Amino acid sequence: MLENKDQSRTSLEELGEFGLINHLTEHFKITHKTTLKGIGDDAAVLSFPDTQIVVTTDLLIEGVHFDLSYVPLKHLGYKAVMVNLSDVYAMNAMASQITVSIAVSNRFPLEALEDLYVGIQTACTNYKVDLIGGDTTSSTTGLVISVTAIGNTTKEKIVGRDTAKAGDLVVVTGDIGAAYMGLQVLEREKAVFKVNPNSQPDLEQYAYIVERQLKPEARKDVVLLLESLEVLPTSMIDISDGLSSEILHLCKNSKVGCNLYEEKIPLDPQVINTCEEFELDSTTIALSGGEDYELLFTIRQEDYPKIKANPNFTVVGHMTEEREGAHLITRANTKIPLIARGWNALQSE
Amino acid sequence: MLENKDQSRTSLEELGEFGLINHLTEHFKITHKTTLKGIGDDAAVLSFPDTQIVVTTDLLIEGVHFDLSYVPLKHLGYKAVMVNLSDVYAMNAMASQITVSIAVSNRFPLEALEDLYVGIQTACTNYKVDLIGGDTTSSTTGLVISVTAIGNTTKEKIVGRDTAKAGDLVVVTGDIGAAYMGLQVLEREKAVFKVNPNSQPDLEQYAYIVERQLKPEARKDVVLLLESLEVLPTSMIDISDGLSSEILHLCKNSKVGCNLYEEKIPLDPQVINTCEEFELDSTTIALSGGEDYELLFTIRQEDYPKIKANPNFTVVGHMTEEREGAHLITRANTKIPLIARGWNALQSE
Repeated sequence: MLENKDQSRTSLEELGEFGLINHLTEHFKITHKTTLKGIGDDAAVLSFPDTQIVVTTDLLIEGVHFDLSYVPLKHLGYKAVMVNLSDVYAMNAMASQITVSIAVSNRFPLEALEDLYVGIQTACTNYKVDLIGGDTTSSTTGLVISVTAIGNTTKEKIVGRDTAKAGDLVVVTGDIGAAYMGLQVLEREKAVFKVNPNSQPDLEQYAYIVERQLKPEARKDVVLLLESLEVLPTSMIDISDGLSSEILHLCKNSKVGCNLYEEKIPLDPQVINTCEEFELDSTTIALSGGEDYELLFTIRQEDYPKIKANPNFTVVGHMTEEREGAHLITRANTKIPLIARGWNALQSE
Repeated sequence: MLENKDQSRTSLEELGEFGLINHLTEHFKITHKTTLKGIGDDAAVLSFPDTQIVVTTDLLIEGVHFDLSYVPLKHLGYKAVMVNLSDVYAMNAMASQITVSIAVSNRFPLEALEDLYVGIQTACTNYKVDLIGGDTTSSTTGLVISVTAIGNTTKEKIVGRDTAKAGDLVVVTGDIGAAYMGLQVLEREKAVFKVNPNSQPDLEQYAYIVERQLKPEARKDVVLLLESLEVLPTSMIDISDGLSSEILHLCKNSKVGCNLYEEKIPLDPQVINTCEEFELDSTTIALSGGEDYELLFTIRQEDYPKIKANPNFTVVGHMTEEREGAHLITRANTKIPLIARGWNALQSE
């Protein structure tokens, strides 16, 4: 009997994160005319007279999203805010307020939480957002951080995931893959430390990629830059789960295909060197690495002259008709289907 | 050396929840003119042209805020929404949207989360709010639920905690103490079940108080009723931590004192009977019990005729000058100082 019972139950792994959200929320109806966008984009959008409010939230769990054995609490506080602001900027909106809730066990002294809040405050100051609320409670085990970010903009400026067109250029900001390789270096140091607690790690040659992992920056500057260049992207998303997963979100939501060119993917030399050292393929890392918090967006071809000279932007491909599918064009000029593999999938390999 | 280190650290218990929030956030500055109210009320208020947005958030942790051995997941989902809507109504605003984030370990099958979301959906339908976003992630141990509720109203209608005046009447909606006594009954049944797993609990005589614990209702109806009666409270708060704690919040924020009359505190007969059975003082339970999610508000004396005939409202006292302090006037007509003891404090006794 117990066995039968188990067989009739569905495990969460079978569905995956996106499948789970869709499954659990598919029967919910939107009833307010102020709810312009609900679940399914980087952030929800509420429409009020003269103002669009953007809302996004993330839940960070110790042991799942961060490992306090190598993540300083200041950086964790900073990153927890960045992860959310990044979603607001991915809507082409300006972040203005956050709420922060934490659950914490008694093993944390006050001084640890002060460090966490120094990081949160630094993020608030650097990005000019106000902390407006939250909840502080106890936890039975580790640290839990829940951040909700609120932004606003005007109706014409909101950029979603579902408005890319075939022929649009695909643009990536900065470079990608670094945050994932930074994590690999930190994980290796942790393993070394376990064996020899007196080891002194020399992370200087990995400074950039470790900083990208521990203290990412959300691309507020890109939203402001696009505005000053008078470029309104046709679709946008932030790169939290790896380039392939994000580009496939744009394709699926916009009902288009894409050609992504391997040789165009922007990589920092430190990522290339560290990939060689770890015997990892740098393209795979860029496609599936995640946590870069760069922006991925599409623009009309006629806007290309406005962005082409800017070192912040790299055109990595173009959108195609939906029936053509989503492909990576390799350096050897072979065309292979893009598949979504978030960094969680990558880690379990 | 280790000992010295420990002595210089501060434990979280020393500060308490409110002290902790204040301590951690005191150096944060408000920089946006849209941020009308930040930390320190039931909800934050954002001010946009023609619209005030109200935002509140709560984090619920298994083993701290709920015990799945007697809380059905449907009810938990419902209650998680109610706790947040209650904060929106306490600002005299209407709730319109929520986000729900959950972290869940693999011990939960999909069907368990479906139950949780049935409860969330029922709450959304009954209270007419839209689920607009969230985050679903894995947890290393138990279930974590983070809900953010958003509401809106006009500027004139927002009611905070800091605007009560000496002479104002203090009003409680419904009755209080029931949720806490419901919890006592459930805890007793759990203890009985541990000793004898075949025991069949008969909770019929406790139906009301158990329902108040498991499936509380936020008082949206009261906000609508006050509007139809043309009564704008001078201050308002929801009763989540017990009457004495909440009334002291109003007093402190509004810089007034109060006289609260023991004989006026509205108690359901089932609360009185169950208090007798458990040999607990019903006034203590009402003052410190918590989780009732009723509203506590103050009105000008001239508004008294508008509410006096309504069975939803009980006048329990009046505000006084701050120098007079906050007191309970007992049935024996003695005057004793009110002290804030949340239900957490009560439980550890």
